[in-house]
Amino acid sequence: MREEWTGFVGGTWENQVNVRDFIQRNYTPYTGDESFLCGPTDATKTLWAQVLELSKKEREAGGVLDMDTKVVSTLTSHAAGYLNKDLEKIVGFQTDAPFKRALMPYGGIRMAMKACSDNGYEVDPEIVEFFTVHRKTHNAGVFDVYTDEMRVARTNHIITGLPDAYGRGRIIGDYRRVALYGIDRLIEDKKEQKNLCGSIMLPDVIRDREEIAEQIRALGELKKMAAIYGCDISKPAKNVQEAIQATYFGYLGAVKEQNGAAMSLGRTATFLDCYAERDLANGTFTESEIQEFIDHFVMKLRLIKFARTPEYNSIFAGDPVWVTESLGGMGVDGRPLVSKMSFRFLNTLDNLGTAPEPNMTVLWSPRLPENWKKYCAKMSIKTSSIQYENDDAMRPIHGDDYAIACCVSSMVVGKEMQFFGARANLAKCLLYAMNGGIDEITKVQVGPKYRPITSEYLDYDEVMAVYDDMMKWQAALYVNTLNVIHYMHDKYCYERLQMALHDKEVKRYFATGIAGLSVVADSLSAIKYAKVKAIRDEDGLIVDFETEGEFPKYGNNDDRVDSIACEIVTRFMNYVRSNPVYRNGVPTTSILTITSNVSYGKNTGNTPDGRKKGQPFAPGANPMHGRDKKGAAASLASVAKLPFRDAQDGISNTFSIIPNALGKEDAVFMGDLDIDLESVK
Amino acid sequence: MREEWTGFVGGTWENQVNVRDFIQRNYTPYTGDESFLCGPTDATKTLWAQVLELSKKEREAGGVLDMDTKVVSTLTSHAAGYLNKDLEKIVGFQTDAPFKRALMPYGGIRMAMKACSDNGYEVDPEIVEFFTVHRKTHNAGVFDVYTDEMRVARTNHIITGLPDAYGRGRIIGDYRRVALYGIDRLIEDKKEQKNLCGSIMLPDVIRDREEIAEQIRALGELKKMAAIYGCDISKPAKNVQEAIQATYFGYLGAVKEQNGAAMSLGRTATFLDCYAERDLANGTFTESEIQEFIDHFVMKLRLIKFARTPEYNSIFAGDPVWVTESLGGMGVDGRPLVSKMSFRFLNTLDNLGTAPEPNMTVLWSPRLPENWKKYCAKMSIKTSSIQYENDDAMRPIHGDDYAIACCVSSMVVGKEMQFFGARANLAKCLLYAMNGGIDEITKVQVGPKYRPITSEYLDYDEVMAVYDDMMKWQAALYVNTLNVIHYMHDKYCYERLQMALHDKEVKRYFATGIAGLSVVADSLSAIKYAKVKAIRDEDGLIVDFETEGEFPKYGNNDDRVDSIACEIVTRFMNYVRSNPVYRNGVPTTSILTITSNVSYGKNTGNTPDGRKKGQPFAPGANPMHGRDKKGAAASLASVAKLPFRDAQDGISNTFSIIPNALGKEDAVFMGDLDIDLESVK
Repeated sequence: MREEWTGFVGGTWENQVNVRDFIQRNYTPYTGDESFLCGPTDATKTLWAQVLELSKKEREAGGVLDMDTKVVSTLTSHAAGYLNKDLEKIVGFQTDAPFKRALMPYGGIRMAMKACSDNGYEVDPEIVEFFTVHRKTHNAGVFDVYTDEMRVARTNHIITGLPDAYGRGRIIGDYRRVALYGIDRLIEDKKEQKNLCGSIMLPDVIRDREEIAEQIRALGELKKMAAIYGCDISKPAKNVQEAIQATYFGYLGAVKEQNGAAMSLGRTATFLDCYAERDLANGTFTESEIQEFIDHFVMKLRLIKFARTPEYNSIFAGDPVWVTESLGGMGVDGRPLVSKMSFRFLNTLDNLGTAPEPNMTVLWSPRLPENWKKYCAKMSIKTSSIQYENDDAMRPIHGDDYAIACCVSSMVVGKEMQFFGARANLAKCLLYAMNGGIDEITKVQVGPKYRPITSEYLDYDEVMAVYDDMMKWQAALYVNTLNVIHYMHDKYCYERLQMALHDKEVKRYFATGIAGLSVVADSLSAIKYAKVKAIRDEDGLIVDFETEGEFPKYGNNDDRVDSIACEIVTRFMNYVRSNPVYRNGVPTTSILTITSNVSYGKNTGNTPDGRKKGQPFAPGANPMHGRDKKGAAASLASVAKLPFRDAQDGISNTFSIIPNALGKEDAVFMGDLDIDLESVK
Repeated sequence: MREEWTGFVGGTWENQVNVRDFIQRNYTPYTGDESFLCGPTDATKTLWAQVLELSKKEREAGGVLDMDTKVVSTLTSHAAGYLNKDLEKIVGFQTDAPFKRALMPYGGIRMAMKACSDNGYEVDPEIVEFFTVHRKTHNAGVFDVYTDEMRVARTNHIITGLPDAYGRGRIIGDYRRVALYGIDRLIEDKKEQKNLCGSIMLPDVIRDREEIAEQIRALGELKKMAAIYGCDISKPAKNVQEAIQATYFGYLGAVKEQNGAAMSLGRTATFLDCYAERDLANGTFTESEIQEFIDHFVMKLRLIKFARTPEYNSIFAGDPVWVTESLGGMGVDGRPLVSKMSFRFLNTLDNLGTAPEPNMTVLWSPRLPENWKKYCAKMSIKTSSIQYENDDAMRPIHGDDYAIACCVSSMVVGKEMQFFGARANLAKCLLYAMNGGIDEITKVQVGPKYRPITSEYLDYDEVMAVYDDMMKWQAALYVNTLNVIHYMHDKYCYERLQMALHDKEVKRYFATGIAGLSVVADSLSAIKYAKVKAIRDEDGLIVDFETEGEFPKYGNNDDRVDSIACEIVTRFMNYVRSNPVYRNGVPTTSILTITSNVSYGKNTGNTPDGRKKGQPFAPGANPMHGRDKKGAAASLASVAKLPFRDAQDGISNTFSIIPNALGKEDAVFMGDLDIDLESVK
């Protein structure tokens, strides 16, 4: 056994890159309470005060304190940066100074320029010329290929939020590998993988070999990046501090290379706890020292920042990074995956105060240790900064070493990734169906020129028939557009470091998303159960509706309408599946509009459910605001009926309980991350 | 009809891009003699004297007068350059001054750096960094993907001269289209093509759409390039001067973007003559003026220069560009395609003196007009600067609008292109076969570890059996290596302007090449008909041969050995064909080593035919020097037996006749371009 591993239980993980096997053989489940936790050290307090001061200055400066305009970010583009070199136990910034945002033009030079100019900076003209003339970007590639139909669909928001001008994100490198194995071993492993690509040089083999070559190059550069900070990560980490540092370097490399929509961390806590337990037993470090390492690690994660445009920030209600860390959960062998380190992560919310990042996500199961559940509840009440997800729903699919990317996208760490796919506006699609593909707001022919509905009163079967056709068109166009995006992202903005921290054979989820589900369900319900009259403008376009009578509304546990919602999800997903997808991806969909439901609503006309033009959609799979009148249980029951197998990328329900309703003074917020972001940022 | 076309006979060419149709309806075959030709104007003499002076300075400076080290060459990267703006009737240089070589790093930054440093220049470090870190090159891509086997095969010269660090060339844009249609129309045509790519976004469709987008961009930039010289090429050319200028701008754009191994011009003369005849009839220009345009055009073509390394120059015996212009030939309707302009092109050899470029290539048929044949012979005797190719052999395959790329590669202009493929050393392969894949010079295991020949005396059937296996390996490795090269060339060094001047559906020849054919034929003949003893070194490796007795040698019209040569060509070509090739290319091979036969020989050990280690191979399909003892007719007969259908990319025979042999004082050189290059440069 390697010297750095002395004291660990050996196994498969020694001979193959297999972090889960290491964890399973070496972790210590913790069922105790939080009484062992330590408060912040003086160094932690000093550093955090410094961060708060800089944050204040950043706000005063209008949101950005400093930006690179000349140096293009790479793993080794910057000298070391510190808050206070003498005090920091975990080091590393994206640039050579905290709060200085890096220049990352691979996704799109125009987006990078706009992010600068909107904040009062200007990208060096030579850089602009180079990335315009000689070094094509993802954004330029995509727009070279888009069809007129794709462009017009995009402009009219029937397909929306596409990652065609920014990094797609939703890829989690297994950053723990850097700590457990060291870079040299990972490079050897990748070289072996390259040799196993096959020697018949078909295009896919050539692509795979080139990608692995890029991954190997990235690993070599990561080693150099660590060396800039005086750290040697060529070999395995020797203690918990080195393990945290190496894991962070892996992650830092990813955020130096990629400005992705969600740059999540993975599931590191219990892995790191194996080192902590060994060090505590050996007397290498005290509990206070270990907490300090984690505090400094989390402090660094809180300072991950990207150069972004106001438009981007408005879609996402802030400029989230989604540094999601998945905590807890149960092992497939029945042991809880909760360790002392899980507690230490949540304890940073006390030591440093509350914050939206890193996005602490508790993988929830009723079988989790009571003390852990209580501590989570306590910290939730105190900080409103914890997200909960259903481990029992995901474990059967992914096993027990998956993590969450962004807010709900689950994937096995280092073995699965996602091609992020934004959303299709299903509510607008319903209007297109009735208007023969003409946009109700812009009056532009966007969809196919199918026959419109011409009757005055809407007939359910007639509407469902045209809607079905239009959804089929929308799904095909959507998948096709995403095929272009992911091809070009791989070509011009490939996540080489993140993929270097994956296995060779990766399962790629081809994610799509749905917006406006409850609007569609209620609209179709109105047409079916009430009498809906179409109001047409001077061009004969349906622009409004008059509804006589009552109709069942989604969110009241009423099968008459809930079944419509389920039916739409399944139909749309089946149409998505019926299209060829890039790189043999596995199609999934999510019902997860986060905060962008507001902007989707803004771009959608009047709908038959009574929602007026411009009014927000409900977030995610939520019932429309105020329409769920039968109480919380009925509302939740409606959402719970949605078929997870047809929305495997996640169904989000934003749900809040008023403190008084529970008869207590503290509030527990449950639901998805967007609440936290909105309330905190 | 468009105003610019007034006076031309209309037809299909008006409504679709179809230059051949235009030529066929509008050209005037010329059967007269050269008496109409004019000498150089004073302007021509002044300009040419200036060129000679600059050439002298360039030689004195060691071969290069000036190089760009900071500006990366694009269509619009340079201001206008002139010899003497007032005198030049046809304008345009690759950079902003004659004799200044452009910086073209897309093929490979290290090659570009070496070309500079070997000539005493240094590429700007920022450019080097950018093309190392951010903008990958063809060369970098290829080496990322190469297998160890490919690298070692390349280093040991069993596969050799691969275009993996330089532009592949062998693509002829239909530069005439720029003159006939103008850029605006060509852009419209390309936009229409893009719409016809299909909307199911499979990777091939995405690639095609992106390529056409790049082509459209290149056409737009070509228009800007012309505008820098004060010329508007958005519309069709109005007279012969504009037509020559526009055709040249098309070509100039190509050599500003691509430093290809062969950048040929096509078949422009008789096309341009349509304009000349119209202008002569209208009194727009005199014969002297038209000759001046052509003289100035040819002068520009002679000044096309690239930044190249001494190694490159040594392989190619100089730094040829292969600005091949295909002249004459017969039409499929029986009319000769010889026009007055064909004469004017050859007349430049008188007006400006002899030169290797442009590579004037006469497409020969016995049915050509007598006066033209006589004039060609006269100019050949005078200048040794004309290449002849068999039109009767190529016309049945390509029709009558094909042209020659480089020295023998035939392709229909604008409809076919070639993926250039360098050569496989078949003589070395024979040695590998006998030595179980071990290189006879480096002692490295390069080929598969097949069983070597162990007997002292070589048995023909045994040797043929192992040779067959080794050729099969060699062909597969060769095709696989080329698949990588062409994938990466398309990815990082795509010929966007040249392909913009092609149809949408292009036939792609996937070219391979054979070196050492006569060595192989004679070696196998020796084994079969004489007694060959293998001499082994201390490691048991066969390193030499002792031959007792006589054996028939290739080049004496002796079927016993000529049949072996034919058999080898067919076997190798069939093995090439049995491998999957990039982009549905049509595999071809050539027997055409030009001058590089010297370097191939240098890297090949002793062979059973008695050739000693390091001695040159015969060029192309030639018999080995001095072994063809039965006279010229027998020698030519042996070569003529080689199966053209299995070597469709060309069979070259270098053949010279001593003046005295014909009883005259002037010499006629016949054969392929390498003679010309060697004698002139």
